[in-house]
Amino acid sequence: MMETSAIIYVLDLFGVAVFAVSGSLAAGKKRMDILGVVVLGVVTALGGGTLRDVLLDSGPVFWINNTVYLLVAAVFSLLTFFAARIITFHRPALLVFDAFGLAIFTSIGAAIALNITNSPGVAILMGVMTGTAGGVIRDILSAEIPLILRKEIYATAALCGAFVYIMIDRLDLSSITCLIVSMTVTLLIRLAAIRWRFSLPVLTSNDDDFSQGGPGAA
Amino acid sequence: MMETSAIIYVLDLFGVAVFAVSGSLAAGKKRMDILGVVVLGVVTALGGGTLRDVLLDSGPVFWINNTVYLLVAAVFSLLTFFAARIITFHRPALLVFDAFGLAIFTSIGAAIALNITNSPGVAILMGVMTGTAGGVIRDILSAEIPLILRKEIYATAALCGAFVYIMIDRLDLSSITCLIVSMTVTLLIRLAAIRWRFSLPVLTSNDDDFSQGGPGAA
Amino acid sequence: MMETSAIIYVLDLFGVAVFAVSGSLAAGKKRMDILGVVVLGVVTALGGGTLRDVLLDSGPVFWINNTVYLLVAAVFSLLTFFAARIITFHRPALLVFDAFGLAIFTSIGAAIALNITNSPGVAILMGVMTGTAGGVIRDILSAEIPLILRKEIYATAALCGAFVYIMIDRLDLSSITCLIVSMTVTLLIRLAAIRWRFSLPVLTSNDDDFSQGGPGAA
Repeated sequence: MMETSAIIYVLDLFGVAVFAVSGSLAAGKKRMDILGVVVLGVVTALGGGTLRDVLLDSGPVFWINNTVYLLVAAVFSLLTFFAARIITFHRPALLVFDAFGLAIFTSIGAAIALNITNSPGVAILMGVMTGTAGGVIRDILSAEIPLILRKEIYATAALCGAFVYIMIDRLDLSSITCLIVSMTVTLLIRLAAIRWRFSLPVLTSNDDDFSQGGPGAA
Repeated sequence: MMETSAIIYVLDLFGVAVFAVSGSLAAGKKRMDILGVVVLGVVTALGGGTLRDVLLDSGPVFWINNTVYLLVAAVFSLLTFFAARIITFHRPALLVFDAFGLAIFTSIGAAIALNITNSPGVAILMGVMTGTAGGVIRDILSAEIPLILRKEIYATAALCGAFVYIMIDRLDLSSITCLIVSMTVTLLIRLAAIRWRFSLPVLTSNDDDFSQGGPGAA
Repeated sequence: MMETSAIIYVLDLFGVAVFAVSGSLAAGKKRMDILGVVVLGVVTALGGGTLRDVLLDSGPVFWINNTVYLLVAAVFSLLTFFAARIITFHRPALLVFDAFGLAIFTSIGAAIALNITNSPGVAILMGVMTGTAGGVIRDILSAEIPLILRKEIYATAALCGAFVYIMIDRLDLSSITCLIVSMTVTLLIRLAAIRWRFSLPVLTSNDDDFSQGGPGAA
């Protein structure tokens, strides 16, 4: 038990660090100043877990009682700011960092929600929300189309990872194994979607007037 | 009391279902894939009540302890996805589903807040926020101009419905009567606004340089 | 102690009033109707403190137990609506009201968080989030580029004010002095940025393909 929570802790910090990098890169692309970069990096890094804690109503959110999270988020945002002056980050860099964060936070979100509620449905939704919320906040605040809305596989990857977690949690495996397998599933699906631009069938519609905003559009 | 909460429960599920349909339609119009449709449908359906529970700090949000909500939201999102391959939904479909959800959630939000806080002002604001939050999340995530911002009567309909609830709650009527009357008020105002494009007087201003973003706009 | 909380209370109400004005002005510029103006004014006014209370999980949010906040927000929104029919507000008006709200809410947010958590890092982040959240909600709901994203100094001003609060709180000064000094720092930096359009160095990048959305952009 002790060991599991230690591993979750390390993974959580790793997720915070990669999302901080992705948030800082997004802020940098919008030419925000150094403190704007740090604020967007920190908010992106802590957004998913914050939503999880607020929805579960499990006391003050995680970064209030343990400021290591805040420190890691701020330090990696600052490092990214300075690194971006030396190294050129291409767009895939942000996407890959985001994919790692998505995979880690989805699995941890599902694990925590399953522990507390014992409901597979809630655990899956909480996993997807924890994994995607940081990125959604980042994209909205940096005025980009949220990754979750792109025609790429994104929420789908998280959904698969969370589902796998729920499934293998029933087997007699250690929590760590479940986390690693679930994370790997999300990460591989997402990276494959980035690399080969996979996509799922879309809701087809002949309703053309709809897509132009229709009556009442401002 | 028992009966009232049973009726609130059924109405709540109905509101979840219609908002799930509206969220799925919005996702489909953006050509999101099947799982994106389900995620947006579920988030739209549960958004308003989630905000209400978080603000009232009444323990874990409602869909964590009762997964029927989650199931209804997911099933209706899926049904919409498949129905949209057979039936053509016109834009008014989304607006009408949204109007039902707005009316139901506004009344329930006002009723719950009034029970807990006994404050009319809080009940009205909570009603409006519960009614509109799901749609705002849907529109932001699907990159549409939020309905609440259109020049149509929207928040206004919710405000009237919530106000009516507060007023008739003082009479010696059953909770169910109050809910039905309040809901009908919101629904009729909103449907009339959709049908005849009613609007209220706007804040007139001669400040032209403002609307172009002014100094400092990025 | 009693005196301090009374002063915080008055400042808090003042912050609510100025943010209500800024929210109503933003709504008016989008030609929203009278009730839309009031709703946006109220949400802007209460947004920052609401986020603070939700994250600290300190019971129902502040405006639920004390409806004076709600009343002040609604009244100032209404007053702004009618005043705007007589007086022409120029863009700087909104920016200046926003600057006062930012300064007040940042200091109060930092003070409350420091009292509860005793952690400087958390207090700074909470100050910045409390100060900026109302404006972010206002700008998102009125479909403007959030002020926090402009190339002006914005989050930076809040960060400096919160930092100053943390620093001088260690000296043997009264809470009121700390609040006033911290507020003045945020306000002066922000007003100077508006007046002379100061900005900080930005994250420079040669990654041109990134800013065009890159592969996968919808």
